[in-house]
Amino acid sequence: MLRAAAASGRTAWGATVSEVDADAASRAGFEVITNTEAALDRAGEADAIVVLAVPLPAVESVLRQVSQHAAHCLLTDVVSVKGPMLDAVRRKAPYTRYVGGHPMAGSEESGWLAGSVDLFQGAPWVVGVEDDTDLADWAEVARLVLDLGAFAVPLPAHSHDETVARISHLPHLFAAILASVGAQGGPLAMSLAAGSFRDGTRVAGSSPELVRAMTEGNREALLPIVDDALGRLGAARGSLASTGGLAVTINAGHEGALALAAERDALRSGVRIDLTATDARDGLIALGERGGRITAFETGAAVGEVS
Amino acid sequence: MLRAAAASGRTAWGATVSEVDADAASRAGFEVITNTEAALDRAGEADAIVVLAVPLPAVESVLRQVSQHAAHCLLTDVVSVKGPMLDAVRRKAPYTRYVGGHPMAGSEESGWLAGSVDLFQGAPWVVGVEDDTDLADWAEVARLVLDLGAFAVPLPAHSHDETVARISHLPHLFAAILASVGAQGGPLAMSLAAGSFRDGTRVAGSSPELVRAMTEGNREALLPIVDDALGRLGAARGSLASTGGLAVTINAGHEGALALAAERDALRSGVRIDLTATDARDGLIALGERGGRITAFETGAAVGEVS
Repeated sequence: MLRAAAASGRTAWGATVSEVDADAASRAGFEVITNTEAALDRAGEADAIVVLAVPLPAVESVLRQVSQHAAHCLLTDVVSVKGPMLDAVRRKAPYTRYVGGHPMAGSEESGWLAGSVDLFQGAPWVVGVEDDTDLADWAEVARLVLDLGAFAVPLPAHSHDETVARISHLPHLFAAILASVGAQGGPLAMSLAAGSFRDGTRVAGSSPELVRAMTEGNREALLPIVDDALGRLGAARGSLASTGGLAVTINAGHEGALALAAERDALRSGVRIDLTATDARDGLIALGERGGRITAFETGAAVGEVS
Repeated sequence: MLRAAAASGRTAWGATVSEVDADAASRAGFEVITNTEAALDRAGEADAIVVLAVPLPAVESVLRQVSQHAAHCLLTDVVSVKGPMLDAVRRKAPYTRYVGGHPMAGSEESGWLAGSVDLFQGAPWVVGVEDDTDLADWAEVARLVLDLGAFAVPLPAHSHDETVARISHLPHLFAAILASVGAQGGPLAMSLAAGSFRDGTRVAGSSPELVRAMTEGNREALLPIVDDALGRLGAARGSLASTGGLAVTINAGHEGALALAAERDALRSGVRIDLTATDARDGLIALGERGGRITAFETGAAVGEVS
């Protein structure tokens, strides 16, 4: 974010407890303040947008610092679960103007060197809309997201968490299980592993701490999704053992793959949401929940598209 | 295979029941005989290696043609299960000199246009060794594999089938289930799907007929692997529901991912197997089962490496 925000012409500075990352970012010409509280003091004075980019288990202690040093700031984050994040903000930094965020981008790598200035180009970035979200604050965070090259997907925390359980947290669990079952096959299995195994296990190479933080942190939304997957895998097992057939499983998977391709290639029509209207929040949420996105702002309105 | 065999300087011709593929290959300058029996007659006269590249359900009818038109040929195949293939050859084409094969390469696409001359570069290619395999025949098939840019992994059918259940067929089942669970989330889920979902579901885009053929055809080896995966997913579910922790699952997956990376980067030492020795078959199998491979031939010996 620091790279992309600076590239968009914004004044941006970072703070991190990682000396390695601070050194690397400084050497690349970015301003890094090694004392988080000093960075927050400056943000408070400059009325800057504060972006939390820490794993969920570290959120509460950082929020305590925010509340002490930039209590009324416009606050967003890139944490991969939004319900627990919203709860934490309400408890630990209740006077901030909070708009949650989650970019759907990244890789199995972490730290400064895993980033790049174009990491967010064309990526969906969830920007949280709750009953009490101020839409001027929302638009300011969404404008930052657009400046970084992403598009903004307006969603309430519960929709976000249910969806990421489906399309990110279950894939991480499946990757871990595939990698374990594969490794049980020893050097022979590893030597034969080709595309399907490498793709299916890629994210098992991610930092275990980050994967635990996001999956365990989304427990409530993840449990019913895991149950759905268990049911489907059990049904496949039963069918393979009894009739020997896997048509239901394989065909449903193929239809799912076609649905993903169809969404990618879908024709989209333009939408315009008047942010001063009384039902603007509902309009934004309805757009996000239909798979739509905001791509620009005009005076008093958000402009986007939906398939 | 037709492209790569011709590129290696071998005389090669193809036969297919797909008119689209026959046209495309002919237009690309390859010799395609539209009558399979005529192609087999020519193979019998030329003492050519016959390669079956059809899905398992089509194997028996093609083997019947082989047995009528090239009964004593050196026969190999690229079918993704080897035990059922061996059984079919013993029943339908018992006089062929059969050495099974399976290249660990390809994509979710099929047909002529999905191939390329360098598809097999650096890929492992299982070349079957059974109690009754003639090692001169084995070496002739393995030499073809090396000419195509791959390396040869000597394995008996049962080791191959257990391993591909682990590193190919379970990944295909997981991809199908992930794609189904994802698609249940509708356009919103599809619009947010990023790297972990796209990678985890890529092979769900494969031809359902091919995926069914390989998974259903490997039922005996696949069932215990699916049970292992079910047990692990059930344990993750139980742990998430009770303590909320996923450390065991996530850490085991991360160790599996490291094992895959370690195998890829391992230092390998050279081995030399005298193909005229009485225990040559055992030596080849032991090499394959340790994750080793044959990379060249010298007079009377196979040369390879193992980590």
